[in-house]
Amino acid sequence: MIIDKYNLRAKKINSLLCVGLDSDFDKIPDKFKIEEFPQFEFNKWIVEETKDFAAAFKINIAFYEARGDKGIHELKETMEYIKVYYPDIFTICDAKRADIGNTNNGYVTSLFDWFGFDAVTINPYLGQEAVQPFLDRKDKISIILCRTSNTGAGEFQDLNVDGVPLWQKVAGKVSQDWNKNNNCMLVVGATYPEEMKKIREITGEMTFLVPGVGAQGGDLEATMKAGLNSERLGLTIHSARGIIFSDNPKQEAQKLCEEIRENRI
Amino acid sequence: MIIDKYNLRAKKINSLLCVGLDSDFDKIPDKFKIEEFPQFEFNKWIVEETKDFAAAFKINIAFYEARGDKGIHELKETMEYIKVYYPDIFTICDAKRADIGNTNNGYVTSLFDWFGFDAVTINPYLGQEAVQPFLDRKDKISIILCRTSNTGAGEFQDLNVDGVPLWQKVAGKVSQDWNKNNNCMLVVGATYPEEMKKIREITGEMTFLVPGVGAQGGDLEATMKAGLNSERLGLTIHSARGIIFSDNPKQEAQKLCEEIRENRI
Repeated sequence: MIIDKYNLRAKKINSLLCVGLDSDFDKIPDKFKIEEFPQFEFNKWIVEETKDFAAAFKINIAFYEARGDKGIHELKETMEYIKVYYPDIFTICDAKRADIGNTNNGYVTSLFDWFGFDAVTINPYLGQEAVQPFLDRKDKISIILCRTSNTGAGEFQDLNVDGVPLWQKVAGKVSQDWNKNNNCMLVVGATYPEEMKKIREITGEMTFLVPGVGAQGGDLEATMKAGLNSERLGLTIHSARGIIFSDNPKQEAQKLCEEIRENRI
Repeated sequence: MIIDKYNLRAKKINSLLCVGLDSDFDKIPDKFKIEEFPQFEFNKWIVEETKDFAAAFKINIAFYEARGDKGIHELKETMEYIKVYYPDIFTICDAKRADIGNTNNGYVTSLFDWFGFDAVTINPYLGQEAVQPFLDRKDKISIILCRTSNTGAGEFQDLNVDGVPLWQKVAGKVSQDWNKNNNCMLVVGATYPEEMKKIREITGEMTFLVPGVGAQGGDLEATMKAGLNSERLGLTIHSARGIIFSDNPKQEAQKLCEEIRENRI
């Protein structure tokens, strides 16, 4: 199973940390801005600083699309760099994609083949039939938005569907129907540990991508207590701003990694 | 209001046709494939063939992302061409985007400013608070997915929420809360005319982007009967494959445009 790539890395370095290369051009240090390829040079530096603690890298593609074809080129260079030097680190594209049927083939080709990501985030609203081209890729992981970390997530996700909230329906359908190839994960925000506990009950051993620790206020201990699976895995805990735009990315990555280790015991 | 751009064009040429530049590289004629910028050259030809009948052009970005930075560059060139030669034709990027809060700024910058689209399609699952950066752009339109045209759309969209289907909740929330700047539209598939009728009742004069006529089997007459607003506007009826990959794109665009005219009376 493709999730083995993540689990092997997580066990090897004893870390569930997912470092977010959300390299907003406006926020990267000036010394990188004057380079020919500023986002790529910044990413190389962050990768080198944080690699010993990173089970995964997650890249939110919005920060690259903002710069048009230049940004896309620098994201591609970043992925080439990671694949050549750190091929055992799991790579996630946070793109929150979903279109209808074969139109998704464009995204599948772009994100899985051209960039070469191991996984991509997917929005469930269009249904399984629509996103099947992603799910058919047994060699890649589809990470379905279930309970997102933002404060307004509940507007639709909390709606009462036959007595249960919509996010619970999403968790159930993904684990029962969408996951035939054992290649689905779910997005479950750290800001909602009670919901995470319920989603863990529903989905067995499935791995969750967990945003919301750090700047968004999620509680790491409560999150891990609610979300770890029977192997003390099953989570990839994301932090971007708190690491990459800190004064010392290496130190911040190490600190969060060590907190994760304490809570894995 | 920004929707006036669309309405002026629609009235000027008496057409509600939205031509889809879904220029899948694999499907464009061989004579374009050998060009340096194949998707751009194909698009220029389609724009020239169909411009007299097109109230709008919709571009699904997946077909360009599939070719990495090359495709992004050719999409940019296409947009420059339309803006220079046909600035009164309304332009829609079908990207089905949505991220959390400020992360959306990357997409806003990319789609509204760098490419220069008038409108973009948005997925509602993360809630209004998440996509506010799109809605704040009073000079641009956010087109929220409501009832999509795919056969599996009902998996989540039909779920029973307090006695009504989820798509109805989406229509209600968008028209009541999201549309404060009068800059929202909805995606309502032509494959579900009964639902369209209900959504028209809920949303007043709002304009709908209508996919699903043609290859997907939607009935134009039933769709227009259910969906036209009081000005005999309120719809932009999308066709891509049936026009752009036909033997005679001009003739097919004209034919659909004339059918639309008959049903506007």
